[in-house]
Amino acid sequence: MLVITLTTDYGNRDYFVSALRGSLLKIKENIKIIDITHEISPFNINEAAYILKNSYKYFPEKSIHIIGISETFKKNIKYKLCKKFNHYFISSDSGIFSLMFPDLEFEELINIDFDNTKSLYPILDLSVDIINKIKDNFDLSKIGKKTNELKILKSFQPTISFNNKILNGQIIYIDRFGNLVSNISSKIFNDFTLNKKFKINLPRKYSITSIKETYSEVNEGEIIALFNSAGFLEISISKADLNKSNGASGLLGIDIMDIIQIEIT
Amino acid sequence: MLVITLTTDYGNRDYFVSALRGSLLKIKENIKIIDITHEISPFNINEAAYILKNSYKYFPEKSIHIIGISETFKKNIKYKLCKKFNHYFISSDSGIFSLMFPDLEFEELINIDFDNTKSLYPILDLSVDIINKIKDNFDLSKIGKKTNELKILKSFQPTISFNNKILNGQIIYIDRFGNLVSNISSKIFNDFTLNKKFKINLPRKYSITSIKETYSEVNEGEIIALFNSAGFLEISISKADLNKSNGASGLLGIDIMDIIQIEIT
Amino acid sequence: MLVITLTTDYGNRDYFVSALRGSLLKIKENIKIIDITHEISPFNINEAAYILKNSYKYFPEKSIHIIGISETFKKNIKYKLCKKFNHYFISSDSGIFSLMFPDLEFEELINIDFDNTKSLYPILDLSVDIINKIKDNFDLSKIGKKTNELKILKSFQPTISFNNKILNGQIIYIDRFGNLVSNISSKIFNDFTLNKKFKINLPRKYSITSIKETYSEVNEGEIIALFNSAGFLEISISKADLNKSNGASGLLGIDIMDIIQIEIT
Repeated sequence: MLVITLTTDYGNRDYFVSALRGSLLKIKENIKIIDITHEISPFNINEAAYILKNSYKYFPEKSIHIIGISETFKKNIKYKLCKKFNHYFISSDSGIFSLMFPDLEFEELINIDFDNTKSLYPILDLSVDIINKIKDNFDLSKIGKKTNELKILKSFQPTISFNNKILNGQIIYIDRFGNLVSNISSKIFNDFTLNKKFKINLPRKYSITSIKETYSEVNEGEIIALFNSAGFLEISISKADLNKSNGASGLLGIDIMDIIQIEIT
Repeated sequence: MLVITLTTDYGNRDYFVSALRGSLLKIKENIKIIDITHEISPFNINEAAYILKNSYKYFPEKSIHIIGISETFKKNIKYKLCKKFNHYFISSDSGIFSLMFPDLEFEELINIDFDNTKSLYPILDLSVDIINKIKDNFDLSKIGKKTNELKILKSFQPTISFNNKILNGQIIYIDRFGNLVSNISSKIFNDFTLNKKFKINLPRKYSITSIKETYSEVNEGEIIALFNSAGFLEISISKADLNKSNGASGLLGIDIMDIIQIEIT
Repeated sequence: MLVITLTTDYGNRDYFVSALRGSLLKIKENIKIIDITHEISPFNINEAAYILKNSYKYFPEKSIHIIGISETFKKNIKYKLCKKFNHYFISSDSGIFSLMFPDLEFEELINIDFDNTKSLYPILDLSVDIINKIKDNFDLSKIGKKTNELKILKSFQPTISFNNKILNGQIIYIDRFGNLVSNISSKIFNDFTLNKKFKINLPRKYSITSIKETYSEVNEGEIIALFNSAGFLEISISKADLNKSNGASGLLGIDIMDIIQIEIT
């Protein structure tokens, strides 16, 4: 069985996604095509990186993950394949690999041989070609040469200031329920607080003084902080009126890029 | 072949659904994972019950239906499995089983052995575990003990008033086309009207005096009442201007929870 | 392997789509059900034709394409199956076949034997029945009689005026990125311009004087014209601010049905 996942910003209405599904289906009978999502905000590499990074690891090893984030207005796009933790990722050289794997250590990193100047749908043409070539034995030498070059995007990393009293993080994602996901991992948090007492400061003077282990330890209406299933500090709020709120994001008026501070008290 | 369906309020953008798909895929080669929907309104047990109740019966017997309606702010959530009509349903003890099957008669009802206090994604962890245990012979004793306890939610049932002259029902669902679905089944309707002449009273003084057998018996622009494919009395209206209306709901200004009356005339 | 695709206006929230998926799943173990889209605008035959026409050809031959565009308010609906390029299409006689294949030349055109007056979900009942009958040898005589009758919808075709100086086309589709797709194919364009110099006139006095081969030849912020992967002239614009625009459609204030002119200069 060959497992292929799709992460795109193409939406579910146009013919792009089904053209991709149909083309992949022609490759091999025993293929499973799984949608991660097609609702990435247009052109949003950061969002795609966050979602795929937290999703791919649930799939079997040797899965092939196709990333189709539109870059149609960029010139001279190159395409790369990286292998990491025995998963395969195909993408334009958009920087997404560096956001997903900031250690930049790959089991393989390949420049895909492909002339995209004549293709109006390169990720389709190229993915079908690659999968045809590697589906039997995953021999990556068939698709291009090894490389060390990669476009690097650096995400904003938490910083420490005020004599080690304050850790500055940032909201990087808001999920369907309005939960606010920060870039503060449990490791960064623990290394900073070292079991000392702390206060989490949010914009508009909201603050929280403890971290819960699960959502179920709180009553409705409370603001809660916990580490989500992706390992990042997340701020949630139980909803008083489902029809008039958007969760923590809406109720607290907090958005992506807003600052979240951990203060030693 | 093992058929697994998913009914959740997780949306199609976050990584929750694909994490679930990927995890299930690892169980067994010959598995079919089918989305019922991931667009249940957040936390809406009634909506999930209505959609799954009208959908599961189209699937093969021995299908396993996973219900993931978020209850993350409730404490001490228990998980149950029920078997009914040779279909298997896995859910938190949210009351959904009682809404789907008000007779409360189950072929099996099991308390699932699972400690959810340490899991941030219990329905995933638990579903994979259950399906691993029962995939070969559906031996439910492997996953927990039989029980008679179940959270009961009572949906508003139609009532009769004014000397048996009026049957009071309620709008319980509005579909994509703005069709208004009531909680008045054809059986309740027929037992009440007994072939006498009747009038259907809607809010804002709209009324209808007949029931059609299919949508095709009406001209565009008319208000129509019929029993939908789920067996409930439904109010529709043909659209004069598709870009400026939301079907019967929008044109008539009627919403969920609004009253619909059957009056013997 | 039997490949079945679904193109509907049912949306992804109601139980209609999963009822269809479940019913098809019961037919045969080795079946692949692929969604083209369920987000066709309600009742919009033109949109469905555009998307399916550009999607089906990526699927394997002998795929069966089910089209479920609601026509529930029309009386006496007939259902047809057509075979074209060794693909099979099932639809109500809505005119979609004539929009997809304006040459009206079919390998087969069949009146499906089906009494829809008693079915509240005819496309489901009928598709399952048809696929059961033809799944083994595609013997279409089992499902109805050959016919030459077909509902014809004529899409607006580009016209020439002003002493062969102007070609008048129309915007027929706007994709997720706000790209404006016209009904001017590359053949119509080339037959008209015959390599002479031209100007593309858009509403609100925008104009373009060249056609690019791919998206990558342009800088961000420019208006660009090219032939898209479906072969039609398309107008795009790179986005200055993703949060405040809808691509070319939003930035230029151009919508479906608007006129696009090619002028020989």
